[in-house]
Amino acid sequence: MLGPSDLSLSGERIVATYVIAGTEAEARARAEDLCFEQTVELPADLVPDGAIRDQIVGRVEAIVPRDESHFAAEVSFAVETGGGELTQLLNLLFGNSSIKPGIRLERFSLPDSSLRSFSGPRFGLEGLRERLGVLDRPLLATALKPMGLPPEELANLAYAFARGGIDLIKDDHGLADQTFCPFGERVDLCAEAVARANAETGERSIYVANVTAPADVLHHRIERAKRAGAGGLLVAPGLLGWDVMRQLAADDTVDLPLVMHPALMGSFVVSPDSGIGHAAIFGQVARLAGADATIFPNFGGRFAFTRTECEALAEACATPMGHLRPIFPVPAGGMSLERVPQMLEIYGRDVMLLIGGDLHRRGPDLSATCRALRQVVETSAEGTVLRS
Amino acid sequence: MLGPSDLSLSGERIVATYVIAGTEAEARARAEDLCFEQTVELPADLVPDGAIRDQIVGRVEAIVPRDESHFAAEVSFAVETGGGELTQLLNLLFGNSSIKPGIRLERFSLPDSSLRSFSGPRFGLEGLRERLGVLDRPLLATALKPMGLPPEELANLAYAFARGGIDLIKDDHGLADQTFCPFGERVDLCAEAVARANAETGERSIYVANVTAPADVLHHRIERAKRAGAGGLLVAPGLLGWDVMRQLAADDTVDLPLVMHPALMGSFVVSPDSGIGHAAIFGQVARLAGADATIFPNFGGRFAFTRTECEALAEACATPMGHLRPIFPVPAGGMSLERVPQMLEIYGRDVMLLIGGDLHRRGPDLSATCRALRQVVETSAEGTVLRS
Repeated sequence: MLGPSDLSLSGERIVATYVIAGTEAEARARAEDLCFEQTVELPADLVPDGAIRDQIVGRVEAIVPRDESHFAAEVSFAVETGGGELTQLLNLLFGNSSIKPGIRLERFSLPDSSLRSFSGPRFGLEGLRERLGVLDRPLLATALKPMGLPPEELANLAYAFARGGIDLIKDDHGLADQTFCPFGERVDLCAEAVARANAETGERSIYVANVTAPADVLHHRIERAKRAGAGGLLVAPGLLGWDVMRQLAADDTVDLPLVMHPALMGSFVVSPDSGIGHAAIFGQVARLAGADATIFPNFGGRFAFTRTECEALAEACATPMGHLRPIFPVPAGGMSLERVPQMLEIYGRDVMLLIGGDLHRRGPDLSATCRALRQVVETSAEGTVLRS
Repeated sequence: MLGPSDLSLSGERIVATYVIAGTEAEARARAEDLCFEQTVELPADLVPDGAIRDQIVGRVEAIVPRDESHFAAEVSFAVETGGGELTQLLNLLFGNSSIKPGIRLERFSLPDSSLRSFSGPRFGLEGLRERLGVLDRPLLATALKPMGLPPEELANLAYAFARGGIDLIKDDHGLADQTFCPFGERVDLCAEAVARANAETGERSIYVANVTAPADVLHHRIERAKRAGAGGLLVAPGLLGWDVMRQLAADDTVDLPLVMHPALMGSFVVSPDSGIGHAAIFGQVARLAGADATIFPNFGGRFAFTRTECEALAEACATPMGHLRPIFPVPAGGMSLERVPQMLEIYGRDVMLLIGGDLHRRGPDLSATCRALRQVVETSAEGTVLRS
């Protein structure tokens, strides 16, 4: 096989860090193998000499010890091999290597020429703050649940939450278009309930409709949610596809904040020796794919994320990434009023706290519970730092 | 919170088997917890009595020992909670539980009312055989690679493969729309090369174009591939989204066989204690989402699937699933001519063998190598069994 002698590449590189299990020699061998697997997908001895071997095959830039049984391999790729399209970028970073145990994509960085291909979050942290009229405190979010309640009762809950000062009231991610709670009725009633509460309180809470839906009805649901007055959309890219979310963020006719849910994506993070790092998938990829806020399981709750993982994730929401806006980290799951002060110490003020079940645990007056939560947040936030 | 007294559900159930790490008591507790997590997403004590508790919350049907440290939990859900839409079905089966280590979705079964919501594979095993004019032997597939070759050279490869009797010649899954190999030129030249070879051989090989692409250009690429004369489409639902693939299969204007690639989906299967079972994701979900052939890493190659896992996967391609057509299992990765007889003994004749690098290893006359492979397949297949 004869390869071309020149591919006219720019020399710009995508750099990814993989944590690889094994000895240093094993890690190096696996990293070198990955350079081929992720690009030419041929054994090294079958790759023609010349531009393909020199410029298309990835390059091991460094191997650094991580702990007694892991090494971090820094691998770079020519930006032209995958930088401009999210589908191929994810494929380049981890497509086939996801199938190999003992390799974890921890982080990546993209040159500006690649970042410029992505419009990223339409609103981001600042834009969402402006829409909600909340410039200087942590945001509060909750979910409408349980599945099985009819639209009217979910709307009653939405009203109570908004009256109590919750900023963002979202559908539980299991609310789709079930017979017992049709999408259209639900969004009409819930959006109306939040608007009614806003008219009474003078605040600007939003109802966030879950539009995670089959590809052929997704845009009908979004139109319906917009018509109803929803102030944001809940999307689970693990169910919809990452690039579908990216397109929604870039679509001027959608033009609503996107709140990302991690459903079905746990398999990428739960095994420390494989998959994708928390910060990479729920922070970096989330921003590339246009999420304005990224929900993740908080440490200490019923899921198994550690504090370090959550902190890294939150940091990836804020760290400079070309022109891509910072976004809200949204720790969730097992959140309670008592944990709020600690959460704000850790995450700072640029966080959205998602509290679900615990709001129902404190007696029948939901609005009163929400107001108590809001007060805890406002008081606790005073000493903390705004990121922006 | 007051729940409804009646939800008018059908009583039909979706049944899923989860393999859970722990003692029997732990497995039972985790299975019961999963019944809430996947539906109402509230702690048990906050779920209102009545129809929600009785009908929406999942139900543990059985707990069976699996090995010394795992139990298999059979859990059922009301079909109305998720049966009609692939996005919500996947969410119901594994959305949040994917985030919990020690839980693996092994298999599931859907009642007919749910299966009827899915058109499934448009061609399936029989339809693909008919299009290729190969009714009674295993199919042969290969990939155009490496990335970095210009369209003309890929087309030369495609011609040589088709001349040698390879049935299905697909883009490598890393070929997208890179500057050094633009999509349009590639599909035009490769489809033409295969057509030319067919005219000479009298066979009906097809060129399968990789259309895994950003959501907003996906349909342009498909149209271009169809116009060029591509005989099938390569799609990676891990990059595109499962439901996007389902919609392509259901779309009369697409009307081409879909060959599914596992890129980025390895994280679902590589850890034995979490994720989704090989047969469930690459067999059952693949069929629900309309794949006509499902590529997976064969055992004994450079990936880590075991023989048992591959056999279960192949069986899931064929086992009755309502009206959904059986599909081709496509073992790939590290395949060689020498392994063909063993592969046919294991998979039978209803298999598509995907051989990549090894074809390049046997001298410069690719067509001769392919003919040798074809002969091995035809000879070895004589004693084996057709599934249909």
